[in-house]
Amino acid sequence: MDGMAVGESGSIRIGVIGGGQLARMMVPPAIHLGLGISVLAEAEGMSAARAADAVGDYRDPETVYAFAETVDVVTFDHEHVPQEILRELEARGVSVHPRPDALQYAQDKILMRQKLAALGVPVPDWAAVADEAALQSFIDEHGGRAVVKTARGGYDGKGVRVVSQADEVRDWFTALAEDGRGGHLLVEELVDFVRELSQLVARRPSGEMRSWPVVETIQRDGVCAEVLAPAPVADPATLDEAAGIGRTVAEGVGVTGVLAVEMFEARDGRVLVNELAMRPHNSGHFSIEGSVTSQFEQHLRAVADLPLGSTDMTAPAAVMVNVLGGPVEGPMPVRYARVLAEYPGAKIHSYDKLPRPGRKVGHVTVIGQDLAAVRAEAQAAAAAFD
Amino acid sequence: MDGMAVGESGSIRIGVIGGGQLARMMVPPAIHLGLGISVLAEAEGMSAARAADAVGDYRDPETVYAFAETVDVVTFDHEHVPQEILRELEARGVSVHPRPDALQYAQDKILMRQKLAALGVPVPDWAAVADEAALQSFIDEHGGRAVVKTARGGYDGKGVRVVSQADEVRDWFTALAEDGRGGHLLVEELVDFVRELSQLVARRPSGEMRSWPVVETIQRDGVCAEVLAPAPVADPATLDEAAGIGRTVAEGVGVTGVLAVEMFEARDGRVLVNELAMRPHNSGHFSIEGSVTSQFEQHLRAVADLPLGSTDMTAPAAVMVNVLGGPVEGPMPVRYARVLAEYPGAKIHSYDKLPRPGRKVGHVTVIGQDLAAVRAEAQAAAAAFD
Repeated sequence: MDGMAVGESGSIRIGVIGGGQLARMMVPPAIHLGLGISVLAEAEGMSAARAADAVGDYRDPETVYAFAETVDVVTFDHEHVPQEILRELEARGVSVHPRPDALQYAQDKILMRQKLAALGVPVPDWAAVADEAALQSFIDEHGGRAVVKTARGGYDGKGVRVVSQADEVRDWFTALAEDGRGGHLLVEELVDFVRELSQLVARRPSGEMRSWPVVETIQRDGVCAEVLAPAPVADPATLDEAAGIGRTVAEGVGVTGVLAVEMFEARDGRVLVNELAMRPHNSGHFSIEGSVTSQFEQHLRAVADLPLGSTDMTAPAAVMVNVLGGPVEGPMPVRYARVLAEYPGAKIHSYDKLPRPGRKVGHVTVIGQDLAAVRAEAQAAAAAFD
Repeated sequence: MDGMAVGESGSIRIGVIGGGQLARMMVPPAIHLGLGISVLAEAEGMSAARAADAVGDYRDPETVYAFAETVDVVTFDHEHVPQEILRELEARGVSVHPRPDALQYAQDKILMRQKLAALGVPVPDWAAVADEAALQSFIDEHGGRAVVKTARGGYDGKGVRVVSQADEVRDWFTALAEDGRGGHLLVEELVDFVRELSQLVARRPSGEMRSWPVVETIQRDGVCAEVLAPAPVADPATLDEAAGIGRTVAEGVGVTGVLAVEMFEARDGRVLVNELAMRPHNSGHFSIEGSVTSQFEQHLRAVADLPLGSTDMTAPAAVMVNVLGGPVEGPMPVRYARVLAEYPGAKIHSYDKLPRPGRKVGHVTVIGQDLAAVRAEAQAAAAAFD
């Protein structure tokens, strides 16, 4: 990378598959760093429309291969691109980050549990179950309640159910049977947690890694609602453990780009890995203002194999609050100007998406000296959109 | 603005005439705020190419009128759009900010001097001179040296000369004579200054104004080289005076959007207005990381008549250093990756422009606790591009 030319035609061009808000938020740092960015969006008018140089189906091999020819490295706004397509891209000499060998552990939760166990990373008790009997067995052995997840495809609370009876996921077992490929569901102990944490780490192909301070995440109805940075955790050992887990997973799985390791801090003191995401993550949006290098900038630097930036906080506290679509579908008057007027210190982020109930349409971040004050302001500003 | 819809087709769309780096740097805040942005660029492949939905000549009326029909408000990356075109836009009901009545004072330096005098704003001694005799008279009355400027078209040191003999600008007088419209040159006393300051202020059509802390600018060969924020000025009265001048000019001239008032802090204590710019300005680039609301975000909010954001500093000190093209024209190896590696806390901004000697191709900003340390780091990072 030494001696890389900068200039109208000399920049590295990064291709992002997926036109959602994660791709949208990669565009500003690409502009600032002088990196080219092209998005393959699923449809016209998506969140990342400003950089959507291509529109097409990421499940169609020819569409993806053609897109890859227009960029220097391919990365993702989501984790759904089929393995076969990713492996074919690599076979054709395309740089793909994260690589399919790593991404599979974000695409299949059972594979992920197996890998984490192999790496010695602490996880909740779990099992891959092929039928209701095996599932009921696990439930009975774990206090009568458990969390069941589909192995593939879930996000923002979808594909996750807390159950006490195995027949509560009969439809999922039916779907597996109909699939023909069979498969298992993932069942996990229902962890009694004090808080949920997220450890974000970025890693380059050359191996350099940088971690952000671990953050606390607050979920509502299975969807991220608030993020407190840094996590107001009393015990420094917990912070060290979270950071260590982040690095172990990033290296052990061979992730490149940004990795988010979501964890439970259990009441009994255990720190247990819940989920992995191999892309910029909701828990990292605070970093746009709250970190010297945002997760979006860092993701671009990492996948382009450029040196990583400082992950220091820019202020003692940063809080992000999500803005979701309200109870009524369709364009709704949003008191946007009121929020801007009443909260001149709050940073508003709109994803330019049509509001549907519960859909992520933006977020608000406030940074400052005191976590409680910053949190109150961010909550109030986000609520003012309702 | 209350009840403004946000959503895929509900956002205000801002049109920027001019495809340079100022337009380029307006794109990230437009993305974050969910505002539409379209740039009318002079040519393909300019700095703001990512948002250049139109390419054409801003001096061609039909090009500009057609562009204006695609946006809700028109603003500028430069101040060269002819008055006749701007007035016709307004006659056609197009929102133009800043308005031609204000912009004329950035387009014509003699008009500017006259207006500032009428507002009672302190300026260097000056005169509009129609010939060498009048010019030599002024020079002789002001210690044998003076600054001569063309009334229109100068920037980054062009159209400005320090002279002791009137014949040193004979070519400019000749050009005026050949122009047919006649006209005058502007001559000003050569101010013995301690430092140069820049006061940035944003103003909305509704009248709301917010000012950034006054900054110190350091020029080299007539081009901005460094900006120190806030200005390390010993006397609080100077800060107050600069802020007051900024507001007086913004209101008195009726500027909307961002206004930069460049001033001299003279050795005899006078604070004197040197130049006005009615657009985001080099002296405000520090605000991308150094201010809660950057000048670019603020400019969009102001021209869209949205409430303005806080201009508080995000850290005690911010220093921006420009990166200029080196001595050799054409694409050159730039030690980009080295700068990223050696200065992980420095924020690099590339304008994706072909480096020509002395051309602004990017800048570096560092924020932190101590001005001297921040300045040293920013200088070193910018120098590492050479």
